[in-house]
Amino acid sequence: MEEQVEKVAKAFVEHYYNIFDTNRSFLSSLYQPSSILTFEGQNIHGVDEIARKLTQLPFDQCKHLITTVDCQPSPFDGGILVFVCGSVHLLGEEHQLRFSQMFHLIPTLQGSFFVQNDIFRLNYG
Amino acid sequence: MEEQVEKVAKAFVEHYYNIFDTNRSFLSSLYQPSSILTFEGQNIHGVDEIARKLTQLPFDQCKHLITTVDCQPSPFDGGILVFVCGSVHLLGEEHQLRFSQMFHLIPTLQGSFFVQNDIFRLNYG
Repeated sequence: MEEQVEKVAKAFVEHYYNIFDTNRSFLSSLYQPSSILTFEGQNIHGVDEIARKLTQLPFDQCKHLITTVDCQPSPFDGGILVFVCGSVHLLGEEHQLRFSQMFHLIPTLQGSFFVQNDIFRLNYG
Repeated sequence: MEEQVEKVAKAFVEHYYNIFDTNRSFLSSLYQPSSILTFEGQNIHGVDEIARKLTQLPFDQCKHLITTVDCQPSPFDGGILVFVCGSVHLLGEEHQLRFSQMFHLIPTLQGSFFVQNDIFRLNYG
């Protein structure tokens, strides 16, 4: 069971940041109306507001480098908790920004997963 | 509702790291047999193994400094996701170690909460 959880988590992480780095507007397909994003302390509810937030971030191209991916089964039936540490490089900026982020993935009726909970923080210092 | 979630999350974080810094062996009271800890990539299952891991960490006294606490309601009935960034200072060490950690808190029948999921990572670099 843990192997399956790890497989989904790793595939999700690769998929998520690949979309983020190539066409952020498609990230909306990973959220639903019940989703919550907490981005640098700001709470954003629902797929529409989350999509707006992510597409309006004040930079264009970026590239995520993932350092670690941890995951656990959630007690919510079939859910998966994913915990990511990495860095993001903004085009034209010299330094990379370190971040950590967690996702709570919930199975869809179609056999896929959506992001119910998403918490993102830059790690300064 | 969000105010209540935030209140529980902040109280939990204060409680958890206070116990960690004063008497780590009491941390076992916050976990249950179903709990999972992923500590620096190592999966540890159940309150007994988790308590053993936490009490046998290779340092004695430490002091956590919390930088940010984010939280969201979990889709698991009454559950709360807590996301912490901070640093830990080990007694006798010059430098602080930055970390991030997530908890999934689940309500108990007694009206309290226990830690079902716990993922911890040091943030190097």
